Amino acid sequence: MNSPLIFYFDPISPYAWLASKAIPRLQAAGLQVQYEPVLFAGLLNAHGQKGPAEIPAKREYTFRDVMRLAAMQGLPFAGPPGHPFNPLQALRMCCAIPPGDTRNRFASVVMAAAWEQGQDISQASTLAHIADAEGLNGQELLAAINQPAIKQSLIQATDAAIAKGIFGVPTFMLGEQIFWGGDRLDALLWQHAGHHIDEARLQEFLQRAPLAQRKQVG
Amino acid sequence: MNSPLIFYFDPISPYAWLASKAIPRLQAAGLQVQYEPVLFAGLLNAHGQKGPAEIPAKREYTFRDVMRLAAMQGLPFAGPPGHPFNPLQALRMCCAIPPGDTRNRFASVVMAAAWEQGQDISQASTLAHIADAEGLNGQELLAAINQPAIKQSLIQATDAAIAKGIFGVPTFMLGEQIFWGGDRLDALLWQHAGHHIDEARLQEFLQRAPLAQRKQVG
Repeated sequence: MNSPLIFYFDPISPYAWLASKAIPRLQAAGLQVQYEPVLFAGLLNAHGQKGPAEIPAKREYTFRDVMRLAAMQGLPFAGPPGHPFNPLQALRMCCAIPPGDTRNRFASVVMAAAWEQGQDISQASTLAHIADAEGLNGQELLAAINQPAIKQSLIQATDAAIAKGIFGVPTFMLGEQIFWGGDRLDALLWQHAGHHIDEARLQEFLQRAPLAQRKQVG
Repeated sequence: MNSPLIFYFDPISPYAWLASKAIPRLQAAGLQVQYEPVLFAGLLNAHGQKGPAEIPAKREYTFRDVMRLAAMQGLPFAGPPGHPFNPLQALRMCCAIPPGDTRNRFASVVMAAAWEQGQDISQASTLAHIADAEGLNGQELLAAINQPAIKQSLIQATDAAIAKGIFGVPTFMLGEQIFWGGDRLDALLWQHAGHHIDEARLQEFLQRAPLAQRKQVG
């Protein structure tokens, strides 16, 4: 049996939303996809990085890029009422739904609500409404996300992702291999078709001593 | 007349090398490409960013990703004898060749020397040898890169790129529009075909107040 393809996402990332739209293509190739909620801010903090929307020039570029990619696919872009927003309740609600098709569908719909429809998914009431519309019990899920076990499961999922070397969203993990970004689906399918790089050559390259170091003023 | 497509590169970036391989596709679409050398470290410093090879988890991922993309295109990967390396002399030598096909070809060959053939392009002797093999005068170019005017032209090109909002390499600039990364050629060609996003909608989105801010510990 093949292990599932893990899709690490946080709805705060418009690229995670765009990547969710490409998942049918992966499923058509025979991959079983499992959505895994992780806190993007936790990944950034762990690796000492800034997010793309935290660097002024990159912020404008990022959203222009997202709008272009959406337009090229015929997807509407509304954007959340403000960005960044607090994604914790949305992420915890995804954690409260066991891994499987129901969680996958709910997470996709939550991301579309924010990015296509302009809904404020940092609000519990919005999330409950989305859950109800998906045939879930919004009030039950709202109660669940205040339970310590659910809060802890998001922390654990984020820590586990960090331990695997994951530094951003969206990230796909197939076996031990990481694919960062919705623009790496061709590489993912290349590996799924049985191709791989020469791992020994990669490790030998990584162990070569640097010839110089830049002066960091940032 | 159309303005040329500017290709901002630094041979320190393996993604700049990979992007150089895609330029014939852009030329086939009628675009006139002009290579513009910029110091990647200068862009990072200006925007307070770390480079992908400066974050341990991202360093390993980056080179695995590069090796995958190269393998998918049938390109050999040797990698420079150490990374990072000092790209200043290579960049200045590109500055010393006037914009045009000769500079474009030399810059492509320098990037291939480092990433496909494993040459140390931080060394003046390597660069002179490459120049000679391309029918240029290596000794003349070596003399040129020590001239204050050539050093200054690299600084000016980097500062001009920063002023245009460029934060990384490879970056393509078509008119006023930035396309960051060799994986954005489809978006570039989409724009070249006359498409564009709704700029007023983008600006309205960018001006929405944030709903939250993450705590930065990085």
